[in-house]
Amino acid sequence: MSRAPITSPLGDGERTATGNALQATLVDLIDLSLTAKQAHWNVVGRHFTSVHTQLDELTDTARNYADEVAERSNAIGISPNGKARTVVASSGVPEFPDNWQSDIDTITAIVAALEALIERLRARIEETDKTDLVTQDLLIEITKELEKAHWMWQAQLAN
Amino acid sequence: MSRAPITSPLGDGERTATGNALQATLVDLIDLSLTAKQAHWNVVGRHFTSVHTQLDELTDTARNYADEVAERSNAIGISPNGKARTVVASSGVPEFPDNWQSDIDTITAIVAALEALIERLRARIEETDKTDLVTQDLLIEITKELEKAHWMWQAQLAN
Amino acid sequence: MSRAPITSPLGDGERTATGNALQATLVDLIDLSLTAKQAHWNVVGRHFTSVHTQLDELTDTARNYADEVAERSNAIGISPNGKARTVVASSGVPEFPDNWQSDIDTITAIVAALEALIERLRARIEETDKTDLVTQDLLIEITKELEKAHWMWQAQLAN
Amino acid sequence: MSRAPITSPLGDGERTATGNALQATLVDLIDLSLTAKQAHWNVVGRHFTSVHTQLDELTDTARNYADEVAERSNAIGISPNGKARTVVASSGVPEFPDNWQSDIDTITAIVAALEALIERLRARIEETDKTDLVTQDLLIEITKELEKAHWMWQAQLAN
Amino acid sequence: MSRAPITSPLGDGERTATGNALQATLVDLIDLSLTAKQAHWNVVGRHFTSVHTQLDELTDTARNYADEVAERSNAIGISPNGKARTVVASSGVPEFPDNWQSDIDTITAIVAALEALIERLRARIEETDKTDLVTQDLLIEITKELEKAHWMWQAQLAN
Amino acid sequence: MSRAPITSPLGDGERTATGNALQATLVDLIDLSLTAKQAHWNVVGRHFTSVHTQLDELTDTARNYADEVAERSNAIGISPNGKARTVVASSGVPEFPDNWQSDIDTITAIVAALEALIERLRARIEETDKTDLVTQDLLIEITKELEKAHWMWQAQLAN
Amino acid sequence: MSRAPITSPLGDGERTATGNALQATLVDLIDLSLTAKQAHWNVVGRHFTSVHTQLDELTDTARNYADEVAERSNAIGISPNGKARTVVASSGVPEFPDNWQSDIDTITAIVAALEALIERLRARIEETDKTDLVTQDLLIEITKELEKAHWMWQAQLAN
Amino acid sequence: MSRAPITSPLGDGERTATGNALQATLVDLIDLSLTAKQAHWNVVGRHFTSVHTQLDELTDTARNYADEVAERSNAIGISPNGKARTVVASSGVPEFPDNWQSDIDTITAIVAALEALIERLRARIEETDKTDLVTQDLLIEITKELEKAHWMWQAQLAN
Amino acid sequence: MSRAPITSPLGDGERTATGNALQATLVDLIDLSLTAKQAHWNVVGRHFTSVHTQLDELTDTARNYADEVAERSNAIGISPNGKARTVVASSGVPEFPDNWQSDIDTITAIVAALEALIERLRARIEETDKTDLVTQDLLIEITKELEKAHWMWQAQLAN
Amino acid sequence: MSRAPITSPLGDGERTATGNALQATLVDLIDLSLTAKQAHWNVVGRHFTSVHTQLDELTDTARNYADEVAERSNAIGISPNGKARTVVASSGVPEFPDNWQSDIDTITAIVAALEALIERLRARIEETDKTDLVTQDLLIEITKELEKAHWMWQAQLAN
Amino acid sequence: MSRAPITSPLGDGERTATGNALQATLVDLIDLSLTAKQAHWNVVGRHFTSVHTQLDELTDTARNYADEVAERSNAIGISPNGKARTVVASSGVPEFPDNWQSDIDTITAIVAALEALIERLRARIEETDKTDLVTQDLLIEITKELEKAHWMWQAQLAN
Amino acid sequence: MSRAPITSPLGDGERTATGNALQATLVDLIDLSLTAKQAHWNVVGRHFTSVHTQLDELTDTARNYADEVAERSNAIGISPNGKARTVVASSGVPEFPDNWQSDIDTITAIVAALEALIERLRARIEETDKTDLVTQDLLIEITKELEKAHWMWQAQLAN
Repeated sequence: MSRAPITSPLGDGERTATGNALQATLVDLIDLSLTAKQAHWNVVGRHFTSVHTQLDELTDTARNYADEVAERSNAIGISPNGKARTVVASSGVPEFPDNWQSDIDTITAIVAALEALIERLRARIEETDKTDLVTQDLLIEITKELEKAHWMWQAQLAN
Repeated sequence: MSRAPITSPLGDGERTATGNALQATLVDLIDLSLTAKQAHWNVVGRHFTSVHTQLDELTDTARNYADEVAERSNAIGISPNGKARTVVASSGVPEFPDNWQSDIDTITAIVAALEALIERLRARIEETDKTDLVTQDLLIEITKELEKAHWMWQAQLAN
Repeated sequence: MSRAPITSPLGDGERTATGNALQATLVDLIDLSLTAKQAHWNVVGRHFTSVHTQLDELTDTARNYADEVAERSNAIGISPNGKARTVVASSGVPEFPDNWQSDIDTITAIVAALEALIERLRARIEETDKTDLVTQDLLIEITKELEKAHWMWQAQLAN
Repeated sequence: MSRAPITSPLGDGERTATGNALQATLVDLIDLSLTAKQAHWNVVGRHFTSVHTQLDELTDTARNYADEVAERSNAIGISPNGKARTVVASSGVPEFPDNWQSDIDTITAIVAALEALIERLRARIEETDKTDLVTQDLLIEITKELEKAHWMWQAQLAN
Repeated sequence: MSRAPITSPLGDGERTATGNALQATLVDLIDLSLTAKQAHWNVVGRHFTSVHTQLDELTDTARNYADEVAERSNAIGISPNGKARTVVASSGVPEFPDNWQSDIDTITAIVAALEALIERLRARIEETDKTDLVTQDLLIEITKELEKAHWMWQAQLAN
Repeated sequence: MSRAPITSPLGDGERTATGNALQATLVDLIDLSLTAKQAHWNVVGRHFTSVHTQLDELTDTARNYADEVAERSNAIGISPNGKARTVVASSGVPEFPDNWQSDIDTITAIVAALEALIERLRARIEETDKTDLVTQDLLIEITKELEKAHWMWQAQLAN
Repeated sequence: MSRAPITSPLGDGERTATGNALQATLVDLIDLSLTAKQAHWNVVGRHFTSVHTQLDELTDTARNYADEVAERSNAIGISPNGKARTVVASSGVPEFPDNWQSDIDTITAIVAALEALIERLRARIEETDKTDLVTQDLLIEITKELEKAHWMWQAQLAN
Repeated sequence: MSRAPITSPLGDGERTATGNALQATLVDLIDLSLTAKQAHWNVVGRHFTSVHTQLDELTDTARNYADEVAERSNAIGISPNGKARTVVASSGVPEFPDNWQSDIDTITAIVAALEALIERLRARIEETDKTDLVTQDLLIEITKELEKAHWMWQAQLAN
Repeated sequence: MSRAPITSPLGDGERTATGNALQATLVDLIDLSLTAKQAHWNVVGRHFTSVHTQLDELTDTARNYADEVAERSNAIGISPNGKARTVVASSGVPEFPDNWQSDIDTITAIVAALEALIERLRARIEETDKTDLVTQDLLIEITKELEKAHWMWQAQLAN
Repeated sequence: MSRAPITSPLGDGERTATGNALQATLVDLIDLSLTAKQAHWNVVGRHFTSVHTQLDELTDTARNYADEVAERSNAIGISPNGKARTVVASSGVPEFPDNWQSDIDTITAIVAALEALIERLRARIEETDKTDLVTQDLLIEITKELEKAHWMWQAQLAN
Repeated sequence: MSRAPITSPLGDGERTATGNALQATLVDLIDLSLTAKQAHWNVVGRHFTSVHTQLDELTDTARNYADEVAERSNAIGISPNGKARTVVASSGVPEFPDNWQSDIDTITAIVAALEALIERLRARIEETDKTDLVTQDLLIEITKELEKAHWMWQAQLAN
Repeated sequence: MSRAPITSPLGDGERTATGNALQATLVDLIDLSLTAKQAHWNVVGRHFTSVHTQLDELTDTARNYADEVAERSNAIGISPNGKARTVVASSGVPEFPDNWQSDIDTITAIVAALEALIERLRARIEETDKTDLVTQDLLIEITKELEKAHWMWQAQLAN
């Protein structure tokens, strides 16, 4: 493909900056979905049932927003990259341990993963304020969902 | 977790052999789902619409069977591993190119990926014939679906 | 509970100011839902059927946004308070009269209640512009719905 | 409205006694719905997920029966009153504490609230036996549901 | 058919008395459904739309309870009779005028019809208290629905 | 109502002739629905289940077309009349016997009723060919359904 | 479990008497569901299809009411017992023969089973009139359904 | 496109005459849908709710038949034309006033629009009787729906 | 079966002529459904996906109308014949080639098949104008659907 | 098409043998679907309703498995052939008689058809055990369904 | 019934052996469903909600497979026996204790019950390998589901 | 209507500027919906099916947002104007050619129309930043959808 087939509604500078924010978000969300699935399959303990179920909902959330982010990237003329190799190279999600994990360890790890992603997203909301309000709107929506998820996971750690 | 929390209905030898077949299938299917999504986002060309749609169906197929395979692995007392790092280390799916791809190149790459996976699956059907008929039944079902998908993708290459 | 179990993605100042805006909105919406139900049960007159139905839709709108506002409050680390006593103490909804009410009096009272809430919400949109864009986005969405409802109720007063 | 617009199928004495039973039940159910929502938003702890979900179901139960009770009140020619101020003045639901609450404290408070309401409802079933069998039938149905809920909440306190 | 094919769980006296109550209710409900349909087709006036719609809901209510009443009659060993000729001979619904009717006249006629049926039903609730509690329960349920409908129709006459 | 509130797209002669065809069809269909319900409640015998079920489907067919016919009557400016008294006075459906009936007697009676209605409808299709093609189209559709029903009922009489 | 974990809204005498009525009903309904399934699998004959289908509906009815009865038992503080051994020891359903059965024999056996259960239920309705109106209401509802089923099964024996 | 790509099942004369009838109907229906939407957005007055709702149903009716008419035009080998410019040039719908309109004025205007379209459609039913019975069948169906709508809108003008 | 079990609403001449038209249409539609399925399974080429899908929709259309035609045949007292042998002996659908076919060849063959059937159907519409308007109405509806399908298939041949 | 467009996961010998088994099954299932439809349209007698309904379910079963068999054939690189002519030439379904058939004769013929197909399928299960386990799995599933159907049809012949 | 009404596709030896495997599985599954219901009604403790819910899903699983096993038994010409008495006499499910049980005791008992059934099923898979591959396929599917359930219940015992 | 019946939550300047942005957007979206329908009906060529389908989805998108824009206009006290004449006078959509169009020409025209609208919408997002954040939020959402559509249409032009 000799020439980019998709044109952009943004100027070159805005396109590059916005594209970087979207690509980084895409990778974070794909890794969140893989991590949540890994946790979903490997959780054990008294609270197995509810944690197992919630992890599937988190996977769906991550997958759906990954799709929206990749579509937005295309819409501004940037090819999105969500391959396994790219995820390993640039994800912001902390490494999840191998093997079965207790329910409490699982919850703790998910809370930490969400905290890391939220902090990165809030920085990107600021960056896109000057480059593309449409993209910013999407990042605000994702942040709202992840912060809500963060509360619901963290609430289970209270004792 | 000092001790495996899940016991197995199989003897030790059968458990290990069957577990290997399932773990390898899990990684193949997760990588197929990531590859199909990557292709879904990056396809361009006259046949964009139908290829874009079919790739989402292929992603769903791969995701659903990955879930069944991981559950079966747990059921025989083996912790499944589907993390990004594991996928990169052991997947049998050929590397998909970066950047936007034409519809024909996309179809050709998907046909090749399916061929590779089907060949690996047929070998595992033979192996599990002696170790676990229940797992074999699942692998037969996955093979049937992938061979059907292979026909429907390959049919588009005829001219 | 000796220590707040939910941490906040916001700094302390932003958390307090945003929390106040959310708590005030929560109380307004709960009282709107109670007022709409009271009106729903007590309306009489030629237009009983359509007014009775619309009041139930308004109740649903108020209840759904109350839920989202309370969830957002938790997400920024503030415990929401929606008890009857709190509603009586701090709601911005004008007192609705006791006993059966004619359809026109009912419509007039609802239009007045919506006007009061919209004005309060628009002030909170300005406040949260500096403290939390995610909360602001939610308040904008609620305002859009209440302003739409305001038009549809007011349209019935034209003669 | 100079004159009551809704006539009654009951005699004056029966209408007043039945109306009192319905009005008291209405207030109890509205306060139960507000209390359950408050608890829904503020629960934390290991059992967050299931308690959070059950509280929403309890809210729905309370809201639906409040609607039926208010409709029955209208049907016998008595205007129902479900405003926040009326709820604060006459509810039989024990005060729920402010701020986040542990899951066990939440369950204990809900069990106590249901016990209080059931006792009041059983007294009203006896009263309406002489004044209106149709209303009694509704109160029996509500009692059945609350007693079932009481069992399911109390079962979680066993250790 | 030389001999009644359906036996009864009731003694002879209870069967006859209960059967009479059910047969009279069946005829009233069928005539209510025909009257509501006639009104549905012939209403005109500013409130056409809502009155037209409500009359269809009243028809459905009447038809569904007619079915339940006829089934209950069979269940106690009495053949139900709902033919047009029987309806004309024994219905308690006041005659509805021919030709198009204004919305207000229509509402007034429906309120009168409901009042007549409710009074008859309340007498039958008392009668069946001694003959069959199961049938009484059904009559109480029908009365509740018709009294609710009576309020909603009458509410439209307030001015 | 001093003056007909609904105007007609037809000339006076066409309106009267078409109106007569529709009014006669309306009465036939209402009586068919009452007869089918009577049979539905009173059928007994080895084939109870299927005959009972089919009679409810026939009732639905008759009720739906009665609605369409009455609406068409209004559309050409003729007030439809479907009251019990009118049905007794002018229906073309043969009288159905009182009391429980065997399944075979029931089927035979329904076949006869359908034959009578079909013959009357075919005459009205011819009449409306000159007065209103829109009405004729509706009568053709009704005839098609009743002739299909006639086959399905008659097929059960073969031995 | 040293101490009953579920308290009762009833006094001790009422609790015991009501509990006995519910336990006996529970066993009857479970055995009815097993008997209906046995008949469902073993029926043969010309009427196979409709009898096979109806038996599944009867199974569902029995299962659903068994659930409601067990829940009511818990609600009054009595542990329900529905184990196979308990069913064999105390059910009131007549023994169903082994092996395939003709459709007519099947219908006859089901009618007899329903008659036996209805008679036992009517006695329990009387007993609970003095001990718990809420439980009585449930028994009335079950009786209504079983008496309706009794008519529909018996109707098939008429010839 | 040098040559018409769609062949016709009709002869040339029939194709032209039928095509003219369809093209004129298409434009009328598109303009009806735009007019109904304009009225839907601009209606005010006591009956706002029901008129607002009915106008959306009329829009749907007009849009669906426009689609069927355009498809039929293609099926006989005539390219349909439904652009805004074409609608302005050849529609038979009377001009609707600018700005908000009272509910009664809105109803009156819609009745007038329907009357105009019905008259034009009835003429086309006659024309197509000789050119294409398939097209005539579609025009008859549209006329039936619009005449039914005409009655329901006109019924609201009676007083 | 010594004697035809289904009587006819038509005279003998009309019955025979109409029956012939229906039997010929039945065979055409069954063969169309078999041909469309054969094409569905054997199509290959760039447009595989959309052609494969459309052929299934065409199969459904053909099957549904075959059912309606066979039912209509019964309704006029003629036994329908849709066996494989009958289809081979009298179908008007051109022979479809064996083996995989390119998408363009497939589309061309389907357009030709539809053209052949439409021409035969139009002749039968004329014939039944004198023998049975109800059957004619069904043939008109089938022709409308096949002519619409013809346009949609032919549109794909334009270049 | 000069060269087969679909490659096979099987070796040549396995492909041919498996392909023959699938082609023969395809023809049997298509003929079963046509035969069941013919029977569905032509059945008469007391049991018309249930037999008519079951035949449609059998048609659906046959059609769905025909689709799966044809898809499997493509998946192993063999073009499936399901044309009317092929069905007549190679089907194993016994010839069904022309004209209306009594219900008992119909049931007897269907039982015989199922017996013939089951015997042929069981032979193919053995053959494919050595050539393709994936295809064998599909044939086992089809056999299970047809043997279940065989029981349900045969059960109706018992007396 | 003098003679078995259902013939078998199997030889006598295979029929007896396969029939024994199916009958034993049927009894195990029915007892599993009764045991799961008993546990569902009697569980108490912190995890009441999720255990209560899972037990209902297990009941559904057991009931559905019991149905499939009984149908398969009929399909091979063996009358299935699922009466309470038969279950008590031959079930392989360990006796469940009377009275309310803690959640942990409940989970432990269910894990033990599943282990017992899985071991018995795996033996039957081996037996049916020589007698009926179709039955074996069903037993493999049931084993897969029970082993998956075993993992999910056992996972809750990890600490 | 002497006086505007709908009041505004905005000051006069903001109301006028925001109203202009909304009115211009309304006209653009209505014309987009008419243009997409025109294209939907007139497209021909190899890609007919997918282009035909996508154009209907684009029509729905345009219609839904037109509704939201008109409602927002009312909510700020400005009467929306969407009549055909207004559309012709002020739309920003390029003129679409008459007659059938090839698929590629159709895609090219749609891409151009979307580009024109997106550019106009981005200007209005800037304008409303100072006048009404609620309206801005709606325009951002519409822009996101149109830019996504623009990518998906443009992707089909790559070769």
